[in-house]
Amino acid sequence: MAAQPVSVLITGSNRGLGLEMVRRMVEGTFTVGKLFACCREPEEPGAEALQALAKLHPDVIVVLRLDVTKPCSIKHCAQQVGSVVGTGGLNLLINNASMLVKATLQETSTEDMLNSFSTNVIGPMNVIKEFLPHLRAAVKASGMPGMSSRKAAVVNISSFLGSMETVQQSYSLFPAVSYRVSKAGLNMLTLCAKEELQKDEILFSLMHPGWVRTEMGGAEGEVDAPENVQSMISMLASLTEEQNGAFLTYYDSTIPW
Amino acid sequence: MAAQPVSVLITGSNRGLGLEMVRRMVEGTFTVGKLFACCREPEEPGAEALQALAKLHPDVIVVLRLDVTKPCSIKHCAQQVGSVVGTGGLNLLINNASMLVKATLQETSTEDMLNSFSTNVIGPMNVIKEFLPHLRAAVKASGMPGMSSRKAAVVNISSFLGSMETVQQSYSLFPAVSYRVSKAGLNMLTLCAKEELQKDEILFSLMHPGWVRTEMGGAEGEVDAPENVQSMISMLASLTEEQNGAFLTYYDSTIPW
Repeated sequence: MAAQPVSVLITGSNRGLGLEMVRRMVEGTFTVGKLFACCREPEEPGAEALQALAKLHPDVIVVLRLDVTKPCSIKHCAQQVGSVVGTGGLNLLINNASMLVKATLQETSTEDMLNSFSTNVIGPMNVIKEFLPHLRAAVKASGMPGMSSRKAAVVNISSFLGSMETVQQSYSLFPAVSYRVSKAGLNMLTLCAKEELQKDEILFSLMHPGWVRTEMGGAEGEVDAPENVQSMISMLASLTEEQNGAFLTYYDSTIPW
Repeated sequence: MAAQPVSVLITGSNRGLGLEMVRRMVEGTFTVGKLFACCREPEEPGAEALQALAKLHPDVIVVLRLDVTKPCSIKHCAQQVGSVVGTGGLNLLINNASMLVKATLQETSTEDMLNSFSTNVIGPMNVIKEFLPHLRAAVKASGMPGMSSRKAAVVNISSFLGSMETVQQSYSLFPAVSYRVSKAGLNMLTLCAKEELQKDEILFSLMHPGWVRTEMGGAEGEVDAPENVQSMISMLASLTEEQNGAFLTYYDSTIPW
């Protein structure tokens, strides 16, 4: 039996990892029904590559405006998604939008901390809360037992820089204090969501996408986006309750907290 | 040889755990030279118990106004401390001030998240940054090798609720999402500080004070403040580089991340 097409939403999808995920999802083997590709400024030059991709796949890709730091933007986006998916709901929500400041502790300002926390932690929290009705609708519509990313799942894009156990080995190379603190906070938020929403059969996982050579990751990155995104997509397509609450890497391993 | 008296600063010291730490430090065996007992409103009724205690120990306790969410308040407090300790510096900084909201994920607001993060993470960060010159002065004045809480140390009061590994067992009883997220963030901040400042010989530890029956902990708490604070003080007095970067409990054990 062919897999049912799933509906997917990706935040921060106009560039880097987010854009590559959109590309691989529509061009690969993941049977996507609707792919909501969200970004802050879909009409600006920074979203041209995404808009071009959307034109090639007009039945699948829906480009939507979403600023995860603005509750009214999240609410409006959720209404638009609801009007498309209806009672079928949203199967897979990928919180990918993120910001990074590379500063050391002594260089980090209150503003760096607040901005990183707002985008990387409060943003995903408010997106999850606002899209809960669509995730619950997907659970209801699926009729499948258990948990899976083809039923209802949230994947929060984290980073190994959010792992307490790896600070010692990575700090001098890449301090990024506000980013590390925000990703540790996102990890905790995800574990809380997992506990609170397992009765609703909604799966929550964290994913470290690798240190990718993108605008955010910089030229020192370890991998090019395409090679690890293909691996991520395969993993995203096959998440089950075994991965509920897991801190996964793109190469199918887990990261210690 | 009798131990040299140390200078100590405790934030949030007008009630609960903070007040009990002040009491035990001046009445116990920890040889404190100066104890800077900080709180937001030292002239208000909420600080009467602290003021009464200070009157009994006028040569040791210095009550100071400090709101850790206000950079100018931190700066002013650091100046006052500097004018007392001079080149002797500050030996032990205890970031104890904290706030707690008990809400689940679905009940947690953007404001809960921002307030908890500002008080529990950005506050300690800015206090550490502003008091660094006094901690470095203490290192210079000590003449001792290695690291210790009698030389220069920062102890951030965290919580087992900030441990990723314990979410599963404790979430349903005590969700407190914004608090958990902030304490996970504080843990990460502390590990970053440890990496960045070990060359300065400043020690950083995290401490879970137990679930204490205080105004914050509520009546369901597991221990009364006095019994675990005595144990905490003994540990605080004897920290060495073995505890640098450790997530300690008041009963001399460690907590997994």
